[in-house]
Amino acid sequence: MADTRYFVGLDVGGTTMKAAVVDDSGTAFPAVSLPTEPERGAEAGLERMCVAIRQAIEAAELSLDDITAIGVATPGLMDIKLGLILDPPNLKPWRNVAVPQYIRAKFNKPVAFQNDANAAAFGEFWVGAGKDVDSFVLFTLGTGIGGGIVIGNKILEGEHSHGGELGHVRIASPTEGRLCGCGRRGCLEAYASATGVLGRAREETAACREPTVVRQLIRDKGEELTAKDIFDAAATGDPLARKIVDDTAYYLALGACNVIATVDPKMIAYGGGMIAAGPSFLQTIIEYVHRFALDYPGSQVQIRYAQLGSNAGFIGAAGCARNLVLGNPEPTVPVLDHGR
Amino acid sequence: MADTRYFVGLDVGGTTMKAAVVDDSGTAFPAVSLPTEPERGAEAGLERMCVAIRQAIEAAELSLDDITAIGVATPGLMDIKLGLILDPPNLKPWRNVAVPQYIRAKFNKPVAFQNDANAAAFGEFWVGAGKDVDSFVLFTLGTGIGGGIVIGNKILEGEHSHGGELGHVRIASPTEGRLCGCGRRGCLEAYASATGVLGRAREETAACREPTVVRQLIRDKGEELTAKDIFDAAATGDPLARKIVDDTAYYLALGACNVIATVDPKMIAYGGGMIAAGPSFLQTIIEYVHRFALDYPGSQVQIRYAQLGSNAGFIGAAGCARNLVLGNPEPTVPVLDHGR
Repeated sequence: MADTRYFVGLDVGGTTMKAAVVDDSGTAFPAVSLPTEPERGAEAGLERMCVAIRQAIEAAELSLDDITAIGVATPGLMDIKLGLILDPPNLKPWRNVAVPQYIRAKFNKPVAFQNDANAAAFGEFWVGAGKDVDSFVLFTLGTGIGGGIVIGNKILEGEHSHGGELGHVRIASPTEGRLCGCGRRGCLEAYASATGVLGRAREETAACREPTVVRQLIRDKGEELTAKDIFDAAATGDPLARKIVDDTAYYLALGACNVIATVDPKMIAYGGGMIAAGPSFLQTIIEYVHRFALDYPGSQVQIRYAQLGSNAGFIGAAGCARNLVLGNPEPTVPVLDHGR
Repeated sequence: MADTRYFVGLDVGGTTMKAAVVDDSGTAFPAVSLPTEPERGAEAGLERMCVAIRQAIEAAELSLDDITAIGVATPGLMDIKLGLILDPPNLKPWRNVAVPQYIRAKFNKPVAFQNDANAAAFGEFWVGAGKDVDSFVLFTLGTGIGGGIVIGNKILEGEHSHGGELGHVRIASPTEGRLCGCGRRGCLEAYASATGVLGRAREETAACREPTVVRQLIRDKGEELTAKDIFDAAATGDPLARKIVDDTAYYLALGACNVIATVDPKMIAYGGGMIAAGPSFLQTIIEYVHRFALDYPGSQVQIRYAQLGSNAGFIGAAGCARNLVLGNPEPTVPVLDHGR
């Protein structure tokens, strides 16, 4: 390849947006972060996205002319094909915001648009944990659980932009399981997200008759208690905390089993804050997968932690921009027909 | 297109193999059926496959020269990429049989090789229930439950040939759920296959204190009892039979919900003997999907019965042959390197 091409990747979260220039090989220049402040409205948010993109180009000591295309990732709900943020709970009060169209008009560059978890999965697929495999699934473990599926360099977006909504794979009864943020019961997210871990910790502590440091943690920290506190307590050997962490691995494995029976990927990876729990947590997930998944694919699938941390989203967004100009068979951003 | 091309599709089942010539538009010529008799061994089985292919060409009043390519579908376990039947329970004692290589050598034509449920899904996608959609999922309801996922004219084969193994999506506890034929617990197949329906019917009848015609059916028919008997009893209004059928729809809907959160297809279709239950059964599945699936994709996904009956497999196999010669990006049958 004669000249390296440069792409800007922008990952918009509910609190922060993060952007960087990423080159053809997936190497990122220094990233910039700006507060999203969604409460200031969509127009202000779109303008801040443009600021972040400009600052990222400056941080790379490049000019806009050096940029081949731009990729933007935003949280759901969205309509990827139409290029719309619909009504995402963590970007309130934004509704029906045409993100890529706005950015394309400002910069006069091709703009790819993608769900944030899909973009993170694509980043890990491109240059992270999944860089050597052809089919890859990422679970992102945070307050909620997101997911992304990449098969043959293509994100499985789904017909209604809900492909890879792996936090809502159901692992327990839809009538008696734990209540999920989506309003339904029994979703993986209700059990294995940070929120799910804390909910189980509180309930199991209330029901527990043995001594446990979790009881003291709940008293001391109240609403400040985090899933990390529970994992830390498990690391010290507290039996209840260990059970809660072990159950978390079990629930994650059940989610993986359903992905194996549906997509049968070469690799499943876990990202997000919870992976700080380290190798033993991953090993427990793997053991449950071996026990409960279809024998052959369950024994063959590679199970790993993600490698790019919070950079996965903007690197993946840049990768989507690269795919867009390299002739990804499905254009990610159609031109809106304003005449209609 | 100047000349119509012709393909032979062959669908090998545990009892019967069925073959027909299918033209470029997916229209099938008269089909031929031969007993599979797997107990006679793989060599005899391969030879009979060749006989079925020849008879299909004769039944179409064509000659081998008219045939562009051949597609063969067989039951799992298999290695699609290597072109091997591994150790399928309903083709005992066949093990590690190189099917497409044998047929290619006999006929000197390109040969596509596919899992039978995947082939049926591709047939329905090509010219059946899914002919107007771009992403399609088929559940085949028989003694077991098979599945196939087609996205953008491409079967989701999976990395280990287990893509779309939808009978083994888990809908209940892996430790307390019903035992599945695969040796694990809680799989959809353990609940909603014909075998699962009969198992639940026997157990619920034993536990039922009310009068029910199912009790009499079990006494009269013994081992001859079929899932159809239960569905027929439900149609006459028997409360227990109605509950069993309603629960079947519920379990199928839970399987659909997990497919929606993973693949988010445009259409989900059901094929196999159970769809003789008619529109009210399908309507019950749809109502449960609306209740338990992610709101937006759950409300948008089209849910239908399959249309091609038992022809779906050989039509889909022919469609795979057509894809092979039209330049499907992933070759389905590699040439075995006998030199190594």
